[in-house]
Formats: sequence, structure tokens, C-alpha cells
Amino acid sequence: MATLRIGLAQMNPTVGDLAGNRALIAGLYAEAVAAKCDIVAFSELSVTGYPPEDLVLKSGFVRDNRIVLEDLAKLTGSCVAVIGFVDRGIGQQISSGQPVIYNAAAVCSHGAIQGVYHKRLLPNYDVFDEERTFAPGSGDHQIFEVAGIKFAVSICEDIWRADGPVAEQARSGAQVNININGSPFHSGKLMQRQEMLSGRARENKCAIVYVNQVGGQDELVFDGSSMVFDAAGNLLARAPQFTSGLSVVEIDINKPVVGNVTPPSDRYEEMYGALVLGTRDYVRKNKFTDVVIGLSGGIDSSIVAALAVEALGAEHVHGVAMPSRYSSDGSKTDAYALGDALGIDCQTISIEPVFKAYLALLAPSFAGREADLTEENLQSRCRGQILMALSNKFGWMVLTTGNKSELAVGYFTIYGDSVGGYAVIKDLLKTDVFGLSRYVNERAGREIIPESVLTKPPSAELRPDQRDDQSLPPYDILDPILDLYVEQDRTAAEIIELGHPEEIVRRIARLVDLSEYKRRQGAPGVRVSEKAFGKDRRLPITNGYRG
Amino acid sequence: MATLRIGLAQMNPTVGDLAGNRALIAGLYAEAVAAKCDIVAFSELSVTGYPPEDLVLKSGFVRDNRIVLEDLAKLTGSCVAVIGFVDRGIGQQISSGQPVIYNAAAVCSHGAIQGVYHKRLLPNYDVFDEERTFAPGSGDHQIFEVAGIKFAVSICEDIWRADGPVAEQARSGAQVNININGSPFHSGKLMQRQEMLSGRARENKCAIVYVNQVGGQDELVFDGSSMVFDAAGNLLARAPQFTSGLSVVEIDINKPVVGNVTPPSDRYEEMYGALVLGTRDYVRKNKFTDVVIGLSGGIDSSIVAALAVEALGAEHVHGVAMPSRYSSDGSKTDAYALGDALGIDCQTISIEPVFKAYLALLAPSFAGREADLTEENLQSRCRGQILMALSNKFGWMVLTTGNKSELAVGYFTIYGDSVGGYAVIKDLLKTDVFGLSRYVNERAGREIIPESVLTKPPSAELRPDQRDDQSLPPYDILDPILDLYVEQDRTAAEIIELGHPEEIVRRIARLVDLSEYKRRQGAPGVRVSEKAFGKDRRLPITNGYRG
Repeated sequence: MATLRIGLAQMNPTVGDLAGNRALIAGLYAEAVAAKCDIVAFSELSVTGYPPEDLVLKSGFVRDNRIVLEDLAKLTGSCVAVIGFVDRGIGQQISSGQPVIYNAAAVCSHGAIQGVYHKRLLPNYDVFDEERTFAPGSGDHQIFEVAGIKFAVSICEDIWRADGPVAEQARSGAQVNININGSPFHSGKLMQRQEMLSGRARENKCAIVYVNQVGGQDELVFDGSSMVFDAAGNLLARAPQFTSGLSVVEIDINKPVVGNVTPPSDRYEEMYGALVLGTRDYVRKNKFTDVVIGLSGGIDSSIVAALAVEALGAEHVHGVAMPSRYSSDGSKTDAYALGDALGIDCQTISIEPVFKAYLALLAPSFAGREADLTEENLQSRCRGQILMALSNKFGWMVLTTGNKSELAVGYFTIYGDSVGGYAVIKDLLKTDVFGLSRYVNERAGREIIPESVLTKPPSAELRPDQRDDQSLPPYDILDPILDLYVEQDRTAAEIIELGHPEEIVRRIARLVDLSEYKRRQGAPGVRVSEKAFGKDRRLPITNGYRG
Repeated sequence: MATLRIGLAQMNPTVGDLAGNRALIAGLYAEAVAAKCDIVAFSELSVTGYPPEDLVLKSGFVRDNRIVLEDLAKLTGSCVAVIGFVDRGIGQQISSGQPVIYNAAAVCSHGAIQGVYHKRLLPNYDVFDEERTFAPGSGDHQIFEVAGIKFAVSICEDIWRADGPVAEQARSGAQVNININGSPFHSGKLMQRQEMLSGRARENKCAIVYVNQVGGQDELVFDGSSMVFDAAGNLLARAPQFTSGLSVVEIDINKPVVGNVTPPSDRYEEMYGALVLGTRDYVRKNKFTDVVIGLSGGIDSSIVAALAVEALGAEHVHGVAMPSRYSSDGSKTDAYALGDALGIDCQTISIEPVFKAYLALLAPSFAGREADLTEENLQSRCRGQILMALSNKFGWMVLTTGNKSELAVGYFTIYGDSVGGYAVIKDLLKTDVFGLSRYVNERAGREIIPESVLTKPPSAELRPDQRDDQSLPPYDILDPILDLYVEQDRTAAEIIELGHPEEIVRRIARLVDLSEYKRRQGAPGVRVSEKAFGKDRRLPITNGYRG
């Protein structure tokens, strides 16, 4: 019998926190030893956390990460540890003049580093910039052995190409491929990974151990979901999504048994998990405990409050209603109904006195001018200013509540409703905000988000009887156009050709382009789509294209 | 005699504005024909403007740029035009699945495209992301001929490596290398380029025609300074820095004559040129005519106002003094003295009434708490809110006035003094702000920036008798530490080892890291250093490294 007992160390590191990550790795290693694992695999760049971005351009940081790795290697015994770290190579990179460094994995046992693998395929698209900092690995592949079984190590992108390193390693005799990852979540990605990995195992007649990081890092959420496939491509096990910890899986190399694998979450369930984890980690890893949210009685602030309560606990979430002369009675009632349903503390601070003070102050400068968007923005900025004052005084992080549809077309006030440390739902189109809100109520089995909030027409309430659909097309028309223009990089002309109304498409595309400068000054937030605003979509602000 | 009459088309394109860029190219081509040029070279990606960033991921955009190129080729006669554009290749890139595209140059004459060169060395460091979007060129080199002289075409980075494409092209018989560029400015880069190009010409015994884009594009300024070197490495000509237009240079391939070349600008002269051009282009290319600046009577707002007047004309610059109870009489006097010296309109709007209204409004929530930074930030945000109201009402872009030292350590109020569309001096350390201010007065031959502004101790004036040096070390101690930590990527430990005081270094490094989230929400501004905050320095917000 040729069995291998494998520990999948699905860890939640903090980028840059070398001492903290070292403690996590040491702890999980001890667990794996206790569980009698032959081998335990940690995620990509587990020593530094993923992605370390330009931190790795600091030579001192790379040196410090190497010291941590060597310390960890000394802890190892017969249980083999595969640990991700940044390896320093020889000399300088020709183009940038930076030292040569690699995204690397060390195979450690018996108190020493037994071998090092350098990632060969470096992703440099979407949110990834690995060619910016790392050199690709090359040369012959090293095959390791544990419990009489031959294995190789690969890193993330290496496994995505059929003719890549994983195939070479199988040809070199690897019976198992340990593939360590920092693979960020987006909706639907889990099934893409699963199908690709199953195929890769089958093609190469090689078992695959896929270990992924878990946790939030700025805009990215890593969803874990580490998996093991036998050499026939059968999924033997999948670790939980969005939860850290060690999973132990036994593979019989000769006689695989199909495991009992829970089905993946549905769309809103996993979106919910990603948003909760991303928010919790951003708040806590940046050493905040409490958050404050402006509650308008609308659906966006309601869902953000519900997510924050799940992420941080009701006692750490503070709501503020900031009514003006234009706020409807329904909004005030809805804001308090939500606060009650969530059990969070709520206060009311009317913006009227400061709004009036601004109008009086500016009256001489504005003499002879009509009221316009200026006065609407003023109200929104009074609210932002109040939230920031509470943030400064009490140390609460402001969570801002804009959704992707609004951010796309610039339907928000810069320095107003956009203020905040984290933009929880910035990557959700409005139609998904509705879908997720219904899921929240279903999940709770009660009305967390009041039914009236789900059914009333969206409004910014910055002038009498305002409604979103006076300024924007209805969301069921807007969102598909945004999906094409923003997420699929189609031009306005192409979208019109697909049958969408010309006038609307032209106007929306123009608004998206013109709002780039506002988005650029926005808070980070959880990426849940294949193309979020941020590192994913690097468009110039100054941009004359009107295609 | 083997002479070549070369037009250096130092153009100022707008990224994405295909129709506008086409008109610029056609106009300069006609000028070159009128000047009897044998060949005219346009800058890198002249059809799209540089850098187009992710615009080139839109297939429709690439198609549209190709149409423009083909139209331009039809206009050409015997004068050869070298035009930068995005070329579509065959198939998809393996890793990203995006279509294969190249950063390309077309050699056009007699109404047709005679050949196309694909850039081979793609910069993917600092502010550059070319491997993200482009595939590298490969294969044999095409050598062209005009007026009996053999030439090759290369693009920007291609010439920076001694054993790169330019050497191969010389070996293949090129007597002249036409190297087209989108090379952004930083202080001191002109001399780096000049030395490298002279060496490259000498090594390869090949004349070099270096053509660079001019103009501002978001954070980058392209400084032109196109140059021609003979095959012995002598600099024959250099086009003006920061100014667009056609320069005509004649090379005698056999008998070079050393040209009459003006010396490069000194440090503050070229910094001034970069800031003026960057500001003018950002404002105008984004279709604004006027700007508004909060005048505090301090040096930062003074220099920004002076730069704005040079960039846009005094009639397009509006100053607002916004005193509070803590403003000194000197500040008010200095703000108006500056406004008078610049001839700009100035108004005064006291923040007292709105500041008082906020204090009253927040009193119940703040009951039992001491006054702290919250009240200072409130004042700063009242000013930001007033500037934005003026911006909204009158269509003026707000220029924000923070310098690099303040941005580095977070010595500014997010949504307060940081509000604005463009941050003119964001890449100048405070010591350079002083140096540049003195230069402005020298250049004008009179006191534009009042002497009292240059000599009084810097203060934010947000509490009684406040001075910057109560919160921060003096700038002559702070700035060298920032240079090491931010621009040179040294760790705190390394900086201490160099002899800087430990306590200060640790505190400053920590402030720089903690302020990352605030900077991320800041306005773009002109890059003048080798490492500006922005695309140059991609550090995580969530960052546990304390090295």
C-alpha cells in the first residue's frame, strides 16, 4: 500500500507580518505532526503573505523573510513542510536593475531546507503584477520523495497551463504534485479551478494537492477551498471556503477512493462569505475594532450594515442616521428598523444646521446662480464630514456604501457619501445588491433588511421627490451595459451593435469614463467579480477615446 | 555625400483621442514635407498616446487605432513617416487569454505601410506595465532605406540594453537607428538618457535619432528633448524640453559636424517646466479652463498658485482664503500679497460659522471627550467642502497643495486639505518646495512668493501657535529619511544603521506605512522623482512589516 497523509495548511497570513506568519506556520506544522501527516503544504508566499506587492523590492524585507524560513526549517522533523517564501537569486535583473528574486517554495524536513522550487509562470494580468518583481524559475525539475512516493512542487499559475511545469514534473516521475496558491476569489472561480485541476491530474496521471491561502488582503479575498485530486482526476476532498485551518487527507496512490465532498456554495452564499471575510480582515488586520456606517434607510447602507454585523459583531457596528429636509419619513423609519433588526447602536444627527450654515456662508459667492448639483453635493459632504468626525473621535473605521453601478457612472459625491476606509459592496452591481439582500433575509429566516427597503424605488434624497431613475436608466437596463463596458471591455459601438439602445449606451459609456477621477480617490473594497475597479482595470483618467 | 534630412516630430498627443492624434500627426507630416525632410519620426504609440494603459485591452480600440494608422499611411509620399501604433497579432496570449498585441512602429511612405517593427524589450517596472498588455516582438530585423541610407526602427526600452535590438540592427547594416519614445521625465533623467544614447551610438557605429513624446498624461510628464547623435556618439542636436513641435536635423553620415546644442536646464528650471506642463495638460486635456486654490499664506499653496498662473494664465486661477480663529494675521496678509503679486482674483470665506455649527451639532455625541485631532480635521474639511462647492458651482478644478513630505507621513487631512482634482507638488519634498519657490522669485526678478512666506516656520494653523515641527522633525532631518525609506526602498533598520536617529526613523517609517490608505485616496499629480507615490510604489495598505 502506498498511502500519503497530507496536511492542507489553509492559512490566513497578514502581508508583511513576518513574525505573525511564522507563528501561524509553526502552529499549523505542529498540528500536522500531531495528526501524523507525512507532508504539510502551506500556501504561496506563506512567509510574507500574498500578494506582498512592492514590499519585495526592499532587499531588507527579502533578507528578513529568508531568516524566518530558515528558522522554520529548523523546526521540521520527518514531516515534510512545503513553505512559500521569496528567494534571492544572483545579480540584478537587466531591465529594472532590481535584485533577482523568485516566488519560491522550500521543501523542508529534518531541520533543513531540502530543496527550493522557483515559480516559472508568473501571472502579469488582471490584479497580478508578478513579472514586475519576480524572475521566472528555470532548469531541471527536482523530484522529492516521502513515504516512498515521489512528488514535485509547483506554484499557482504553474498549473494553469497544460504544457507547463506540472506536465514536465509528471514526466520526470512525480506521482503527486503539491501546488501552492494565492488564488483570489471571484464569483464562479471555484468551479473553474476544480475543472482545470481535475483535467490536469487526469492528463498527467498525477495526484494533485492544491492548497490555497484564505483571508482578505486589501481588495482581494482568498477563499481557501484547498482540494485534493487523485491521478484519475477525481476530487477526493475540498477544505472549507473562507475558513482557515488544517485539513488532513489520505491518498492511496494505487487505489483511490472518491471522497465525500460538499457541494460548492451557491452564488450569493459565496458572495456573502467573501464580503464578510474581506471586511473582517481589512478592519482587523488594520487594527480597528469598530466601524461606523451612515444609515440612509436605503438598500446599500442596509446590506453593508448587515455584512458588518456578521463580520465584526453587532457591538462593534455603529449606525448614524443623518436626515435632511429632503429625507422621507419612510427612510428614517427604515433606518431604525434595520438598526433594531441588527441590534446595533444608532444615533441621529440631522445635517440641517450645518447645511444651512454652508448655504448662508456661500450665498455671497453664489449670488445670482441657481441651485444645482452643488447643493446636493453639499448635503452629501456634510454627512461625510460627520462620519469622519465620529471616526476621528472614537477610532471607528467608516464603511462606505456605494455599489458598482453607482461607482461606474459616478452617481455619488466625491468626499461625500464615498468617504470611508472600506467600500464593502463596491464590486456589486445594484442587481446583485438586491439579490444578496434577499439572501441575507432568507439566511436569517427573518426580515433583517426591511421589506420596504427591498421594494421602494432607490433614491439619493438630495432634492424633493428625487429618484435614481430620473438620472439613470433602470438598473435592469443599466447593469447589463455596465457588465459589457466595464467587465468585458467592449466599446460603446460594439454594445450598440449588440442591440442596446444607442443613446443610453453612449451616455453611460461617457459617464463611466468621466468618473474615473472620482473612483481613483475611492476607498478599497472586496473584489467579487472578474474585473473590479482598482488594480484590475487600469484606465487613464485623461482619456480622449469615445469608441 | 550621404545626408539625411530628419524631422523629429515631438508631439503632444492625448491618450485615447485617436482623431485628435491623427490630426496632430498629419499636421506635423505636412510640416516635414514642407521642410523637405527625407524622414519624419513620431513618438512611441503616437496614434494612441502613451501610455494607453488598459485601453489596449479593448479590441475595438485596437481596431480603431489601426484604421487611423492606415489612413495616415495613405497620406504619405516620398517622405518616410515612422508612426507608433498598437498592432494586432495572431491568436491569444496563453496566460491572460487576451489577444496578442504589440507596441509597434509602422514605416510608411508612398501611400502605404512599408514595414512594421514590434517593440522587443517591454518595461515592466517603476511606472511601466507593458508586459501586462503587450507581447514582445521577435524574428529577423527589417532594414529600410531612404536617400541611399540604411536605417532601422526601434522603440524606447529597446535601446537601453547594450546587447539588445539596436546592436542587432547595426550588425544587420543599419547606419541610422530611429528610436521612438514615450519616456517620462524625472529630475536628472535627461543627462542619463544623453549619456546612454551617446554610448549606444559609439558602440554600434550607428547614428541615433531619439524622438520623445512631450506633454502631461495623468501623473507623468513627457519632456521631449529629442536628440540626434552621429555614429561617433556626438550629440548633434537636441529639441526643446517640454515644448512640442517639429525639429529638423540634417545628418551627413560620412562627415559629422558637432551641432550647437543648448545645455540642459538646471534642477529647478526643469522641475518648474515639468510642473507647469503637467498641470496645464491635466487641466486642459480634461476640458477644464479654470482652477481654484485655497490660499493659506503658506509656501505650498503659494508655489501651487504661481505654477498654476504660469500654466493657465492669471485670469484662470482663483484664490480663496479661508481663515479660522487660529489663522495668524501674517497668513491673511501673505495670502493677499501673493494674490496681488500673481494678479489673480481672491476671495475670503471664513470657516468660522460652519466650524461652529459642526461643533454644536456634534457636542451631544462628543460629550465628555476632550478636543483632539478631530477638531483640527473638522476645520480642514470645512475648507475642502468650500473649495468643492466653488468647484461644483463654477466648474473650476480644485488644485490641492500637499507636498511629498506631508503625504509621506500623513500630515494632512483626508477629505480636507487633500481634496482636489490635481496635486501639483505631490512629488516634491518640502526642501524642494523651498528651492523651487526661490527659483520662482529669481526667474521673475521680483517677489512673487513673499519673503515672509519663505522664512516663517511652516504651520497648519489648526490650533493656537501650532508649528509643523511640534509634530514632525525639522524638514532637513525628515526629508533625507524619507528619501531613503520611500525613494530608495531601504528598511528602517538599514536607515538607522546609516546613522540616522533610531527613534525618529522608527516613528517616520511607521507614519509612512500607516498613511498608505490616505495617500491611496489622494489626487494624481506630477511625477518629478524616480519614485513617486502612485504607480511607482505599489505597497499594500494592510501591511504588517516593521523592518
